[in-house]
Amino acid sequence: MSSTFGHAFRIHTYGESHGGGVGVIIDGCPARIPVSPEMIQHALDRRRPGQSEIVTPRKEADEAEIHSGIQDGLTLGTPIAIHVRNTDQRPGAYDEMAVKYRPSHADFTYDAKYGIRAASGGGRASARETIGRVAAAAIATQVLRQLAPGIEVLAWVHSIQHLQAQVDPSTITAEQIESNIVRTGDPQMAEEMIAHIKAVRSRGDSVGGVIQCLIRNCPTGLGEPIFDKLEADLAKAMLSIPATKGFEIGSGFAGTELTGSQHNDAFFMEDGRVRTVSNRSGGIQGGISNGEDILFRVAFKPTATIMTNQQTVTSSGEETELQGKGRHDACVLPRAVPIVEAMATLVLTDHLLRQRACAWG
Amino acid sequence: MSSTFGHAFRIHTYGESHGGGVGVIIDGCPARIPVSPEMIQHALDRRRPGQSEIVTPRKEADEAEIHSGIQDGLTLGTPIAIHVRNTDQRPGAYDEMAVKYRPSHADFTYDAKYGIRAASGGGRASARETIGRVAAAAIATQVLRQLAPGIEVLAWVHSIQHLQAQVDPSTITAEQIESNIVRTGDPQMAEEMIAHIKAVRSRGDSVGGVIQCLIRNCPTGLGEPIFDKLEADLAKAMLSIPATKGFEIGSGFAGTELTGSQHNDAFFMEDGRVRTVSNRSGGIQGGISNGEDILFRVAFKPTATIMTNQQTVTSSGEETELQGKGRHDACVLPRAVPIVEAMATLVLTDHLLRQRACAWG
Amino acid sequence: MSSTFGHAFRIHTYGESHGGGVGVIIDGCPARIPVSPEMIQHALDRRRPGQSEIVTPRKEADEAEIHSGIQDGLTLGTPIAIHVRNTDQRPGAYDEMAVKYRPSHADFTYDAKYGIRAASGGGRASARETIGRVAAAAIATQVLRQLAPGIEVLAWVHSIQHLQAQVDPSTITAEQIESNIVRTGDPQMAEEMIAHIKAVRSRGDSVGGVIQCLIRNCPTGLGEPIFDKLEADLAKAMLSIPATKGFEIGSGFAGTELTGSQHNDAFFMEDGRVRTVSNRSGGIQGGISNGEDILFRVAFKPTATIMTNQQTVTSSGEETELQGKGRHDACVLPRAVPIVEAMATLVLTDHLLRQRACAWG
Amino acid sequence: MSSTFGHAFRIHTYGESHGGGVGVIIDGCPARIPVSPEMIQHALDRRRPGQSEIVTPRKEADEAEIHSGIQDGLTLGTPIAIHVRNTDQRPGAYDEMAVKYRPSHADFTYDAKYGIRAASGGGRASARETIGRVAAAAIATQVLRQLAPGIEVLAWVHSIQHLQAQVDPSTITAEQIESNIVRTGDPQMAEEMIAHIKAVRSRGDSVGGVIQCLIRNCPTGLGEPIFDKLEADLAKAMLSIPATKGFEIGSGFAGTELTGSQHNDAFFMEDGRVRTVSNRSGGIQGGISNGEDILFRVAFKPTATIMTNQQTVTSSGEETELQGKGRHDACVLPRAVPIVEAMATLVLTDHLLRQRACAWG
Repeated sequence: MSSTFGHAFRIHTYGESHGGGVGVIIDGCPARIPVSPEMIQHALDRRRPGQSEIVTPRKEADEAEIHSGIQDGLTLGTPIAIHVRNTDQRPGAYDEMAVKYRPSHADFTYDAKYGIRAASGGGRASARETIGRVAAAAIATQVLRQLAPGIEVLAWVHSIQHLQAQVDPSTITAEQIESNIVRTGDPQMAEEMIAHIKAVRSRGDSVGGVIQCLIRNCPTGLGEPIFDKLEADLAKAMLSIPATKGFEIGSGFAGTELTGSQHNDAFFMEDGRVRTVSNRSGGIQGGISNGEDILFRVAFKPTATIMTNQQTVTSSGEETELQGKGRHDACVLPRAVPIVEAMATLVLTDHLLRQRACAWG
Repeated sequence: MSSTFGHAFRIHTYGESHGGGVGVIIDGCPARIPVSPEMIQHALDRRRPGQSEIVTPRKEADEAEIHSGIQDGLTLGTPIAIHVRNTDQRPGAYDEMAVKYRPSHADFTYDAKYGIRAASGGGRASARETIGRVAAAAIATQVLRQLAPGIEVLAWVHSIQHLQAQVDPSTITAEQIESNIVRTGDPQMAEEMIAHIKAVRSRGDSVGGVIQCLIRNCPTGLGEPIFDKLEADLAKAMLSIPATKGFEIGSGFAGTELTGSQHNDAFFMEDGRVRTVSNRSGGIQGGISNGEDILFRVAFKPTATIMTNQQTVTSSGEETELQGKGRHDACVLPRAVPIVEAMATLVLTDHLLRQRACAWG
Repeated sequence: MSSTFGHAFRIHTYGESHGGGVGVIIDGCPARIPVSPEMIQHALDRRRPGQSEIVTPRKEADEAEIHSGIQDGLTLGTPIAIHVRNTDQRPGAYDEMAVKYRPSHADFTYDAKYGIRAASGGGRASARETIGRVAAAAIATQVLRQLAPGIEVLAWVHSIQHLQAQVDPSTITAEQIESNIVRTGDPQMAEEMIAHIKAVRSRGDSVGGVIQCLIRNCPTGLGEPIFDKLEADLAKAMLSIPATKGFEIGSGFAGTELTGSQHNDAFFMEDGRVRTVSNRSGGIQGGISNGEDILFRVAFKPTATIMTNQQTVTSSGEETELQGKGRHDACVLPRAVPIVEAMATLVLTDHLLRQRACAWG
Repeated sequence: MSSTFGHAFRIHTYGESHGGGVGVIIDGCPARIPVSPEMIQHALDRRRPGQSEIVTPRKEADEAEIHSGIQDGLTLGTPIAIHVRNTDQRPGAYDEMAVKYRPSHADFTYDAKYGIRAASGGGRASARETIGRVAAAAIATQVLRQLAPGIEVLAWVHSIQHLQAQVDPSTITAEQIESNIVRTGDPQMAEEMIAHIKAVRSRGDSVGGVIQCLIRNCPTGLGEPIFDKLEADLAKAMLSIPATKGFEIGSGFAGTELTGSQHNDAFFMEDGRVRTVSNRSGGIQGGISNGEDILFRVAFKPTATIMTNQQTVTSSGEETELQGKGRHDACVLPRAVPIVEAMATLVLTDHLLRQRACAWG
């Protein structure tokens, strides 16, 4: 297993959903960055279970314990270790699942790869693993504030199944997104989405959707061309989030239906700065940020855990049926919004530090 | 810049489009893998310019020189260096472009990042850079043949602008794809696609499209969960190919419109093996291959270099117009098919070796 | 800062000497390796302060808390997080040191590098950091037992200042080493060494020495030639231990006084196995283990913290004097023996897994 | 095999001693660094065979071909590929060695690890591999000149077998070292060393010795504490050079015979800068450079290839005798001096770029 992300700003996560806890070590963080426990806790609270009526009722306070690397509100330049205990464990609820492979979960593939699997909960495949990412990104956000002032990372729910938000990326604000529990950028659509999630959940079913992410005021020059292109690292970061099935940036899949003359972003000058008239590139050209808004979308499949009967097999190879149990999100998107922001923030911070290594003169 | 891809099976590429040449070092390749120069050359010929009437007429033989790591047709376990000279350089054709930023190219961002840029051609941002990837993948293919016999990586053109192929992934063959110069899996559609590319080119314009890729008989257990999920590394690999704007696997973006009960892949037993009834997961669950076909799609934008007048700015900040010149593909997809296959092959080989490090008993 | 060691078997350590605690994440450990908390605790107890009358009396139980990656005595293949709390902190004892740079410590260089420094204790530069290494090596030892049965890693004190042990590496046992609190391989010399350490300590002074390390039954083929030669990684591992000043393997520095005809290790056959008559190579040739005993030595300088008056400067640049305080080892070697073994074990385990990735047929 | 060195400034080498050639890719080099082919050639000429009467007469021009990454005398920020052809190959001279394992060479261990081996010459284990390192270091030297002006890396022969130079590191100059073909810092001793090497060679035997290396004006703050300590990376770099058996820094092994009060480096202020009265630390404290001279020594064993009869075995396991042939150095130290400097330069450049990533404010 490889639980490391990043090259210059590196995070190492650990932890199963049931067990001692989950956490992260952040290595490569510059020294003297102002960080408070409240910032980290605020970030964790946004992805916490039980935060609203449309997410899983699992009761986890998700309280961050900082074990190292921060002193008197400043980073020391040394590894920052953050640990979050698991408190609301109900291993009993998973007895059946320990034997029967849950369809479209990682139960079977973990067994196939490791020959062993955490006996209860999703183990390492649980979305609980993302706690470490979110905590690390809270610190990365502070690094960006110091070293790339003005940069802003905003994600919101673009669609829930067929319900699609209407959002103007040029004006959307964090307040608008946080004003509704589904975290859509279109408050008009929020009620309908919430009602839909509740209706689906009441049938024991689940839904997916698309999250959109916007990065404003990204410095030009981030991204290492060829393999570590900025969009390539964003794509990897997003596809590393549980339940994701797709990534597109700028014009994306729809852009394949345009011709070059329709698609190209013409350059012009504005206040001595090179700008583009349109932004089908999505803020990145040749793998390097060009200073325009970075805009991408991530597809999330419907939650695999549903409460209806499903055909499956046991770990000893017998066909059987499984009735879903446990406390789960019928729709992961409201809680996935801060995770998308977190991964984008980690990618940006890593590339910012990488760029600093070589830039001069 | 970071021109390295892979952890266990690693490739390092180099080279500008105009200059001494381009190439690759392959490190971490097992010893005693049978490799012939012809295999490498065959792979290069599939992505070579000038191979058909719908690709760029740039005349490059793209002949591979093997400098190290292979002896008497067997790998030595040491780094394999492959070099390809640039022969058909016409630097003069790019004089105007050296000063004027080509819209939706990497000219401006390279200048912004490095403060310097290869004076002619696309430099390192040229698709010519992918030669090293394709050469390396020819060797990776041989590693897979030895260590994961039966595995097959097949890509084809799924769509050119609005023209969409009808393909049954369960029966498609390499022969069908290679039977037409556009490399679509739907020979019925090939003529129409070819005619469309020619028509667009005659107008000085360009088109994009979607490439689909299928991996058959992938062993179960490949992929390192959390950040190096198999689909995450595939996404990164694909978005690292020039001109790509999107990646989706299995049900992809369309899958977000299904409910969980519609989307889940039920398990059943077949010949003592765990199988899934449907394959909306696209052959990967929890970041690990489950033995079903891996199926993904990659969006390619229309080629940025077009022959019409475009608004742009110079490197000294003056607004101007640019008339495209040089020899370019009006549609990169036919030549991108082997590149998609190459990157998928590199990801699989790397994960296969990584899995071997830890698997036992 | 980079607190990661290893490529295939990777450890990430964290923690300051005073603060929440210290610990480690182990990533890349194969699944289904038998591990018990007692094994980890036993390893930590060997490097614990307060274990005997010749080491620092700092009272730390150094109890390992395992947060993830192990279930029912078996590794899960997921990251193993081990945390050890700091309990016996006396920050007050360091008030003077927070301002005055301790000679031959890292106080000044941390300030120069980071512009900030842990206010009390040695922070990250404390030998307390090695707890994570030792805990990780306890697990690595179990990996070696499963995948390279018979391998044995033994270190002992070769010299304390001018007092030198007489040891026959071909017969030395762990029991002999552990039979005396100074952990020399020469029990005859132990009493003299202990008396010397006590005498030096009573004068407020300190001593260093040399530790020798022996690896028996190492499989042939470990080590990646060129930069990651087995001896190069051992050298790095050893020089990463606090207070080390030198490393030599096989014939070492003394071997430079021989001629080639005196130095070369002639080959012969024994029971169908290629052996060498002598072993001046120290078990490694061309960076790869040859199956003979690996034998190396590590130089440890005298402990920097002494109880006499020393000339120094303050962090604000004023010349002053410093009187050493706190609880420290007058000689680190007895407690460094398990650290040397730990680092050697980590190097071997990493190279064993790396070799498994590529070996076949 | 892993032929990569460095994290931020990375080099990838390739090539066997007989075959197409040897070379290097340098990745992570900042853009706009002035580099000329002459600088690279000058560096290669210092380690070239045939340069004087006391080194191997193998005739290799070792001409560097630059394939990428440099334009009009400036680096582009893209990978720099440098290739050197093998010209003076005499595979026939090695026929016997292809079957018989040369004592204290890597023939047996390569076979044990890879199950295959370059049929002639030392293959990848040849010192010819270091060409790539030296070429890369020529460019790294230019990076240091721009980003850490005043830094100076100087190595010289400290001893040949029992003959020891008397050198004052505070005054030694490059001119003094280059003034004699043995590259000792003590011109008085040069004649004696040269005569000794010739005498040993005439007997068909070989000698080793110690090289000392000095780094002046190293900026404070280089080195990543814990595992990537500056001295740990120097140790690894030096032990990765063929024929090395030991490394010591500052007081080294001899320092283990001092007490702490004798060994500690007292601090004082000079011109507003923190200095140390003595320098037993060797310029590094806690893994971080402190601004004093960095001074270390590297042990080289006598050359393994000698012209006398030696007992050995064949690759098929038969005991036999081997008579050395080929053109070899009876003493590698004169040619190893630039290699030691090269590896030190690569370590410094890598750590300088790593430090730039995180330093701010």
